[in-house]
Amino acid sequence: MKDNKYVIGVDLGGTNTVFGAVDKNGNIYGECKLKTREYPSFDQFVAAGCDCIMSVSEIVGGIGNICAIGIGAPNGNCYSGCIELAPNLPWKGIVPIVESFNKLLHIPVVLTNDANAAAVGEMMFGVAKGMRDFIEITLGTGVGSGIVINGELVSGHDGFAGELGHVIMVRGNEGRLCGCGRKGCLETYCSASGMVRTAKELLINSDKDSLLRKKALDTIESKDIYDAAVQGDELAMQIFEFTGDMLGRACADFAAFSSPEAFVFFGGVTNAGDMIMDPIKQSYEKNVFPVYKDKAKFLVSELNGKNAAVLGSAALGFKMFS
Amino acid sequence: MKDNKYVIGVDLGGTNTVFGAVDKNGNIYGECKLKTREYPSFDQFVAAGCDCIMSVSEIVGGIGNICAIGIGAPNGNCYSGCIELAPNLPWKGIVPIVESFNKLLHIPVVLTNDANAAAVGEMMFGVAKGMRDFIEITLGTGVGSGIVINGELVSGHDGFAGELGHVIMVRGNEGRLCGCGRKGCLETYCSASGMVRTAKELLINSDKDSLLRKKALDTIESKDIYDAAVQGDELAMQIFEFTGDMLGRACADFAAFSSPEAFVFFGGVTNAGDMIMDPIKQSYEKNVFPVYKDKAKFLVSELNGKNAAVLGSAALGFKMFS
Repeated sequence: MKDNKYVIGVDLGGTNTVFGAVDKNGNIYGECKLKTREYPSFDQFVAAGCDCIMSVSEIVGGIGNICAIGIGAPNGNCYSGCIELAPNLPWKGIVPIVESFNKLLHIPVVLTNDANAAAVGEMMFGVAKGMRDFIEITLGTGVGSGIVINGELVSGHDGFAGELGHVIMVRGNEGRLCGCGRKGCLETYCSASGMVRTAKELLINSDKDSLLRKKALDTIESKDIYDAAVQGDELAMQIFEFTGDMLGRACADFAAFSSPEAFVFFGGVTNAGDMIMDPIKQSYEKNVFPVYKDKAKFLVSELNGKNAAVLGSAALGFKMFS
Repeated sequence: MKDNKYVIGVDLGGTNTVFGAVDKNGNIYGECKLKTREYPSFDQFVAAGCDCIMSVSEIVGGIGNICAIGIGAPNGNCYSGCIELAPNLPWKGIVPIVESFNKLLHIPVVLTNDANAAAVGEMMFGVAKGMRDFIEITLGTGVGSGIVINGELVSGHDGFAGELGHVIMVRGNEGRLCGCGRKGCLETYCSASGMVRTAKELLINSDKDSLLRKKALDTIESKDIYDAAVQGDELAMQIFEFTGDMLGRACADFAAFSSPEAFVFFGGVTNAGDMIMDPIKQSYEKNVFPVYKDKAKFLVSELNGKNAAVLGSAALGFKMFS
């Protein structure tokens, strides 16, 4: 790769799509944003996207300096190059996004889902730099994951591997109902909204005093739990303990699969720092198969707060095409 | 690789160690067996093993035709080349088996654990031929596993990945106590001995009629359950249903990890054929995250009954050194 080459990283989300030119040190030059929902026609979205890419490219010396385009999108399938049945995007069915951009721009294009892109970004620019085996767990509205084994992203035979938010943590009927239609998924307990569900359960099933009782039950957000815990609210701290305990148990099972060097946590919930990370680590060490004890690192992403999705998507472009 | 090259496959077990010369089509030429327990001194074991290797080599034209030695052993670590803290072997601590054979024979040597060797054997010689993503699950005294992702064996950062017999299926105190010291491991339910535990629980907790009641409770073996089920014994069939259901749920979680093309089952329990495979498949399809439905194959190893461990160890030698 020439030093003057850049990758366009594309963070395609339900609300916004962000384009940025990224160099191999993880610097972002110029950003261009589209409102995804304003393009119910996929062809028009691609056309507007190409304009964005051209304008961002100008900042780094023109399209000739772009060696690849990396796209991270919900339900993005790396094998087919298509976004498949994404519930939160305006285009129904299967849309051939790699082919569409490639046809117009004649630049290599690579696609993956957002959590996988985050993992590749972490490997190239973040705390997992140089690691060959790690698991990135994104704790946001849902729980996502990107798994790296032997230095490669795990995509599975169909391109849909790494849905660790949907391993079953509570079996049988008492498990919480998940958006996927099943019960007891990790996501229903450990996402930001899972933590809110825990809060509501605890508030309803006890009469313990809590700062959270100052809010109407239906208006509680994960941020409120954090704010209360910081002030020493016992019930709020109990929620972090419960969430961390569940995540630690889940990671113990993941270790039995790929025995990673590190678990890297990304997303809003990690803003709580040690309040969430300590219970995760303690629970992991307590519950893991003995051979894995005291080996794995538990890290918070360094890309939190930066434009991680643009960086991650760009990293995939560098990995594949430079 | 020249066509006249062979690999010595070594199946190192607690009772016997078997050496065989294997060609790249999976034919085994000559076999030599040592009683592992007769060698409390590791150096003497290696010396006797070298004699075995030399004598087996003679059958295929001499040691000059041997391109590698592949060893499958409990607690075999592929990275360190050592057998580490194997509870059922006569040598305590960490023994440098790769270095020891290499020093005496000057041939490349590779080591892995027995379940991983089985997976590589399946990929080279068995039902997983040509697959890049599959999970081999061995159902014997314990439950072992070998995981292949992107065409490579998953070893993890420490060489100990793929202990799927030790994911937790029943959380909390009601889980069955496992030999690893924890509770609720898959192995405690779905190994041959786990099935016997299920049998005892069902016999004690019900007064349902069963052929199994003809035997004293402590003498029941997994073979008895099979024999009874074949004769239409309802309680015995219920044990297969329960075991298959648990395995199907476990595989559903594994799919969320690596979305494999196939799950390959190996070992004594699979002799029951559809009686175990049907409940596994049904439970998997019922419990799996929707995106993986109707995609994975459920296969029984083709190496069952052959000298699978020798073939698997040899396959690893071919993969690494030819």
